[in-house]
Amino acid sequence: MSQPQQYDPRGIEYYTIPTFTFTSGTTLHDVKVAYRRFNAESPAGTILIPTCYGGFINTTLTLTGPAPNDALAKYHVVVVAMLGNGESSSHSNKAFFPEPGELRYQDVVRAQYQLLTEHLKISSLVAVMGFSMGGQQAYHWAVMYPDFVSHVIAICSSARTSAHNYAFLEGPIAALTNSIDYIAWRAMKAKLARGEEVGQNMKDVVPKNGIRAFARTYAAWLTSAAWFRDREWSKGPFSGFGSLNDWMTAREDGYMIWDAQDLLVLARMWQLGDIGDAIPGEEVKGMKDLGYKVPEDERYEKALRSIKAKVLLMPCRTDQYFPPEDSEIEAEYLQNTRVEVIESTWGHVAGGGLNPPDTAFLNERIGRFLSEE
Amino acid sequence: MSQPQQYDPRGIEYYTIPTFTFTSGTTLHDVKVAYRRFNAESPAGTILIPTCYGGFINTTLTLTGPAPNDALAKYHVVVVAMLGNGESSSHSNKAFFPEPGELRYQDVVRAQYQLLTEHLKISSLVAVMGFSMGGQQAYHWAVMYPDFVSHVIAICSSARTSAHNYAFLEGPIAALTNSIDYIAWRAMKAKLARGEEVGQNMKDVVPKNGIRAFARTYAAWLTSAAWFRDREWSKGPFSGFGSLNDWMTAREDGYMIWDAQDLLVLARMWQLGDIGDAIPGEEVKGMKDLGYKVPEDERYEKALRSIKAKVLLMPCRTDQYFPPEDSEIEAEYLQNTRVEVIESTWGHVAGGGLNPPDTAFLNERIGRFLSEE
Repeated sequence: MSQPQQYDPRGIEYYTIPTFTFTSGTTLHDVKVAYRRFNAESPAGTILIPTCYGGFINTTLTLTGPAPNDALAKYHVVVVAMLGNGESSSHSNKAFFPEPGELRYQDVVRAQYQLLTEHLKISSLVAVMGFSMGGQQAYHWAVMYPDFVSHVIAICSSARTSAHNYAFLEGPIAALTNSIDYIAWRAMKAKLARGEEVGQNMKDVVPKNGIRAFARTYAAWLTSAAWFRDREWSKGPFSGFGSLNDWMTAREDGYMIWDAQDLLVLARMWQLGDIGDAIPGEEVKGMKDLGYKVPEDERYEKALRSIKAKVLLMPCRTDQYFPPEDSEIEAEYLQNTRVEVIESTWGHVAGGGLNPPDTAFLNERIGRFLSEE
Repeated sequence: MSQPQQYDPRGIEYYTIPTFTFTSGTTLHDVKVAYRRFNAESPAGTILIPTCYGGFINTTLTLTGPAPNDALAKYHVVVVAMLGNGESSSHSNKAFFPEPGELRYQDVVRAQYQLLTEHLKISSLVAVMGFSMGGQQAYHWAVMYPDFVSHVIAICSSARTSAHNYAFLEGPIAALTNSIDYIAWRAMKAKLARGEEVGQNMKDVVPKNGIRAFARTYAAWLTSAAWFRDREWSKGPFSGFGSLNDWMTAREDGYMIWDAQDLLVLARMWQLGDIGDAIPGEEVKGMKDLGYKVPEDERYEKALRSIKAKVLLMPCRTDQYFPPEDSEIEAEYLQNTRVEVIESTWGHVAGGGLNPPDTAFLNERIGRFLSEE
């Protein structure tokens, strides 16, 4: 169970955008968007599911299974890899890709829009559904393309990254960027970029200890105090470990497949998440201050009020960094919304498909939400 | 406000224990216990206040002020630095001091007992009161010396470190121990210990980046989601910063006075905290597995039941790592206890004296608890 995660490429296709200009001002050619389609011939309409942090296309909860109660079984479902995750164009596979702090949700969602409209010839979406950073992308969709999306389903997510969430992410980022092998790895990359000689020993450096420190720093946030009190780490499919340390090591193993700089680019994008920056005609371009000044509520509230889609918010009661209180606040500004709290001790990952009862609840409530008029 | 913390030596005295054997088996000579006395001539009896993690004698909340409602004003109060904190004997000031994972609460409390009985000639305590790790020491006092202590006051604390708390602490520890300058610093120290030559450049290494990463990883845990939502970091005395990053940098600055290895020794002791290991005649000696296996509930429950002191537990409603639920569980096994929850958004630090309304509540309830028959 503590084997490093293997990459699963099943069913993945790529759309190449010939020229793409990021909000940072950088223009790149041949920007790829990775995606996978399910039930492509369905006449019931299309649902888009963007990936979450640490997620790949084939680790994303789709709710498209064969059981009659599977919420999305009848739809054409497109799972899309957000830019930066290593499947779509990313720092790890594309020269001059935006650095940490430069990539924004607006870029990610605009690339997905180009995939759908220019390549897949789709002119509207039944829904955008996502977990965590996937939900933040769904929110951005509804603000950036208000007439394109009928429903937004944001699971354990938010329209703006809270200060607490921002502060939590500073931990894993600090652990990685101060680690001895991340610093050596970056120095090696910088030499290569300058065309300098680099020995084979150096070329083989992978910031394993840095990524392990990153994952260990992250681990206590994933679930909840109650989950640990119930010793869930010693039970069940996600866990079943003889010691807490073994469970934490398995969390580390799960990140060993990742490029360290991709992890940082996405973590910074998450920290900067704010739909107030994505209002059409009023976009915030270029770098945003990474210090988290007291945020501008007016733009955020205006963006929430601008959403035409019906919105289903599904926070988990015990989520330590996307707490239900934030969803309730957002709901006050939305025109047409419902908050359905996942009553679970699984915290944030309750929304990620790891605990079958929570997934069944998601499935049922999402199915009901989509079938209502 | 982001100046590094200055050390305050006011009023500190030292007692030297001629020979002290740690539970790890190590015997050292001249082990020092640092302390400060307030109102030493009081006939009302003695209250002992051990330091918390990151705490020094003169940063410890004493509730001994001159106002008539100050809970401890009439008592003889002894604030004692736990072994390992840099004031008492510690890794930073004493050769062959126990390594991280070796120092246990039993050692710390036994040294305090020797200070009180052998040096200060005290034969009983009205109370042991402590915040966080200080509360864990108070709990150990009641188990190790059940006839010596009349009252235990444990603020934002627990009798056994929870798995969640253990997992959270793995983050700062990983951030520090994988950092480039901590590793260089340890290598330099090892060379010196072997009597090898070390250049002045190396001798001057201080693991600043590692300690900063440690503190940054810690910061989001200190208060609560609500505290961040209310933007308390931009207000008030603890905070009042223009950006969240400035507040986090100030948290880092606060740790720059610390020796990195002392931080680790105390963090490991905290992780291993369990009064079940301290039952007289059944002490768990030597190293304990650091992987946090599923803990033995029987010993823990027996230790709780063995406590003769009246116990006041004061968790904070929003404490992220010593939640009130754990105090309620402990209360089920205690003979004579009361749980008074601090209703505050200040999370863990509500118990540390940072927010005046919370401190006033502590003061009032502690005064009431001590005056009752």
